[in-house]
Amino acid sequence: MSDEARADDLLYHVDGDLRPADEATVSVEDRGFQYGDAAFETLRAYGGDVFGWDAHADRLAETCDLLAIDHGLAREDLHDRIRETLDANDLDDAYVRLSISRGVQPGKLDPDPEVDPTVVIVVKPLPRVELDGQSVWDGPATLRTVSTQRIPDAAVPARAKTHNYLNGILARIELRGTDADEAVMLDAAGHVAEGATSNVFAFDGDGLLTPALSGPVLPGITRATVIDIAEEEGIPVREVTIGPDALRTAEEMFCTNSTWEVRPVESVDGASVGGGPVTDLLAQRYRERVEETFY
Amino acid sequence: MSDEARADDLLYHVDGDLRPADEATVSVEDRGFQYGDAAFETLRAYGGDVFGWDAHADRLAETCDLLAIDHGLAREDLHDRIRETLDANDLDDAYVRLSISRGVQPGKLDPDPEVDPTVVIVVKPLPRVELDGQSVWDGPATLRTVSTQRIPDAAVPARAKTHNYLNGILARIELRGTDADEAVMLDAAGHVAEGATSNVFAFDGDGLLTPALSGPVLPGITRATVIDIAEEEGIPVREVTIGPDALRTAEEMFCTNSTWEVRPVESVDGASVGGGPVTDLLAQRYRERVEETFY
Repeated sequence: MSDEARADDLLYHVDGDLRPADEATVSVEDRGFQYGDAAFETLRAYGGDVFGWDAHADRLAETCDLLAIDHGLAREDLHDRIRETLDANDLDDAYVRLSISRGVQPGKLDPDPEVDPTVVIVVKPLPRVELDGQSVWDGPATLRTVSTQRIPDAAVPARAKTHNYLNGILARIELRGTDADEAVMLDAAGHVAEGATSNVFAFDGDGLLTPALSGPVLPGITRATVIDIAEEEGIPVREVTIGPDALRTAEEMFCTNSTWEVRPVESVDGASVGGGPVTDLLAQRYRERVEETFY
Repeated sequence: MSDEARADDLLYHVDGDLRPADEATVSVEDRGFQYGDAAFETLRAYGGDVFGWDAHADRLAETCDLLAIDHGLAREDLHDRIRETLDANDLDDAYVRLSISRGVQPGKLDPDPEVDPTVVIVVKPLPRVELDGQSVWDGPATLRTVSTQRIPDAAVPARAKTHNYLNGILARIELRGTDADEAVMLDAAGHVAEGATSNVFAFDGDGLLTPALSGPVLPGITRATVIDIAEEEGIPVREVTIGPDALRTAEEMFCTNSTWEVRPVESVDGASVGGGPVTDLLAQRYRERVEETFY
């Protein structure tokens, strides 16, 4: 069965029930639709369960705290719904998107403290990277610095992962007509924050550099895992304030997110960078962690 | 019939069809839900048609341009759908929310240039303000300056009216436990931008002051109408850069949006301000424009 045929048969989890994908809907008055008033996590499942659940659940809880979405759901309940969705679709290796919106509330912007949340789980087949195999991405990433600035924390905290994603979408739209497939987003001071859907790392010969979380940077779960692996391997990691020039002149560079895992970067603003032995080592160790955890 | 009973019977317009409110839904994979990737307008209908359609249609077109949502729908088609929805609900005076989302697209953040939009129209009964009558708001607004900053134009342009509304929601959440019902949002430099859902005006004895559109300020349709009326009445209007102190020390102050029309402000950060003769005059002239247009 082709992936496309398969997509029609998928079951999603909506508000407590499994439903065929084409009947998986939310009210037009759901605040997730009207205002993007929702928290979400993107996860990867390997062997029927999601990687790094505790870290994702922690971040989801922080997002819901920041948005004051007091949903009252136990994290184990959310985890069960994810596993139920994977089971129902007979999926071992998958992309998983878990959303909690503030639900439907009377027609005004002020959120009611009493929340009847809408919980949505969408899954897609996503083959895992074999230890010696290929990746979900077609090739290394090509990056361009865009003029759309990352939203400052004082406006919407970057550590909240929400359905307000136009900032990243505007960054990606800027890439139309270029060779790039990921944007480098800067903060208001011109420092590198992150990609539209990824954290960025450079290797400068001495160690890894990555934008510090004091800037408007999502605390990626894959980012944290890669930092942990690097330290285990004796590779120094500096969480710093850097300009885009530090990326363009790096010896190696890669992006991270839950779907891509560790993805080498071919070029930044037309300057060749590429992965290399450090990137390869980290990618390999990441895959080994997945293997150790699930297989 | 109570308004609440009435709400259950309403018909909404979704993707070309009228549907009972409780069956008016969008896919969980609609980008309007997943990313808040949608444009919208809030309008008021009086006597079966919406006020200021051309201005709203212009702004909606600009939002769609900024988001590169090339929906291909004629504005007359959109206008027809609104009137059809009002007719079907037998509503003369109503709140109207028109949304155009980028629709369902394959599972990646990059928007496809080919857009199959989702058009949603939600309506609610909303009695019009009689010339001598009461308003939709319970009383004058009470304002507090919040620490949540307005998103800078360099990140997401304020003139785009989108489903990414968490910035305003975070501002309103800050008001919990205070006496305030509208937030004064500042830009990164500490200048007044706007309320969470309204534009703000102060009268300083010489004329009206309102934040200039060079800052991160939504170009409100009601704001523009009020400026036009003020000029007609010989009241000078200065679109300026002001701090919150200029609001607190104003002789009069009011907020504007399509639903509130002209709403006096009782206090800002605890300092009494209040409406007054200028506010009353503008509110009266606004109502007369509505009357002239529709009755």
